Amino acid sequence: MKNFLYDPACLEVLDFSSVESKFNPKISVVNPGPHLVVRPLSLSDFDAGYIELLSQLTEVGVVTQEQFIERFNEMKAVPKTYYVTVIEDKTTGEVIGSGTLLVEHKFIHGCANRGRIEDVVISDKYRGKQLGKLIVTTLVLLSKEVNCYKITLDCRDEMRPFYECLGFRKEETNSNFMQMRFS
Amino acid sequence: MKNFLYDPACLEVLDFSSVESKFNPKISVVNPGPHLVVRPLSLSDFDAGYIELLSQLTEVGVVTQEQFIERFNEMKAVPKTYYVTVIEDKTTGEVIGSGTLLVEHKFIHGCANRGRIEDVVISDKYRGKQLGKLIVTTLVLLSKEVNCYKITLDCRDEMRPFYECLGFRKEETNSNFMQMRFS
Repeated sequence: MKNFLYDPACLEVLDFSSVESKFNPKISVVNPGPHLVVRPLSLSDFDAGYIELLSQLTEVGVVTQEQFIERFNEMKAVPKTYYVTVIEDKTTGEVIGSGTLLVEHKFIHGCANRGRIEDVVISDKYRGKQLGKLIVTTLVLLSKEVNCYKITLDCRDEMRPFYECLGFRKEETNSNFMQMRFS
Repeated sequence: MKNFLYDPACLEVLDFSSVESKFNPKISVVNPGPHLVVRPLSLSDFDAGYIELLSQLTEVGVVTQEQFIERFNEMKAVPKTYYVTVIEDKTTGEVIGSGTLLVEHKFIHGCANRGRIEDVVISDKYRGKQLGKLIVTTLVLLSKEVNCYKITLDCRDEMRPFYECLGFRKEETNSNFMQMRFS
């Protein structure tokens, strides 16, 4: 029995019927393609190439198994917040895709939740299988399921068409993403 | 003894010497101006006009005291994540400014933390006293203190110059903020 970051049942209930038209051929969270499975991050994914996968996205640096386990347990201890969701290839046992839904609990909008999409990556070898679209769509549907009033993300210019295709918009006069880096 | 969302000592240690030049006259987290105090949100701030203050920022809807207390306790139960920081006018006991530092715990960048600035608002009646600058600067210094590798925010066009003045940048080719609203 795997130690999951969140309850896998959260994924099984997602209704893909409203987004069917976005996929050709049709795939969904319960039917992602041959030998693939979409599931929450598991504690054993350190050994399934999860950190190497993230390094295709950005600088990961050195993350030891001990650090991974500590961070995993920190995230799991926080209810209804960290939904790190991965795609596993059952033939190799490798994690080949990942994306995070982060939920912020606010006072505004009647004590509403706000979702954020973070750290979306699909392994080089698995591009062209609609898996990026699948993971983001899964996170969007999940954010509705956990009562987010909106979901947001920040991205590079080249990713804009991809996210627009999935229903995200840069709102006129309200789409500035600003950063200050310390390291 | 007030029930604070986080330890007020986190604010007392912030080093304003590096940002002194941004304030004229000089104010800081421990010296915000006559009769003012900067502190963490407190459970009693429901009665100090906190929800009314937020309604100057955006739609808040109906938030009952019961809901406020429940959300406050949810936030407080999550360690090192929600740093809702307010300014109180001691002469009236009213909360007249607020801003949130939200800390996300990641695997990337060596299991780093990322800070976000959210829901910054200063009461109409207290504009022109550098209090917006004070609250944002406080949150930036706090994010460094809690080991964030960067701090980010999204904002409307008219707020860009304000945040640029405080050191935030729109990174070329990497400054798209995108949303999908459900309600």
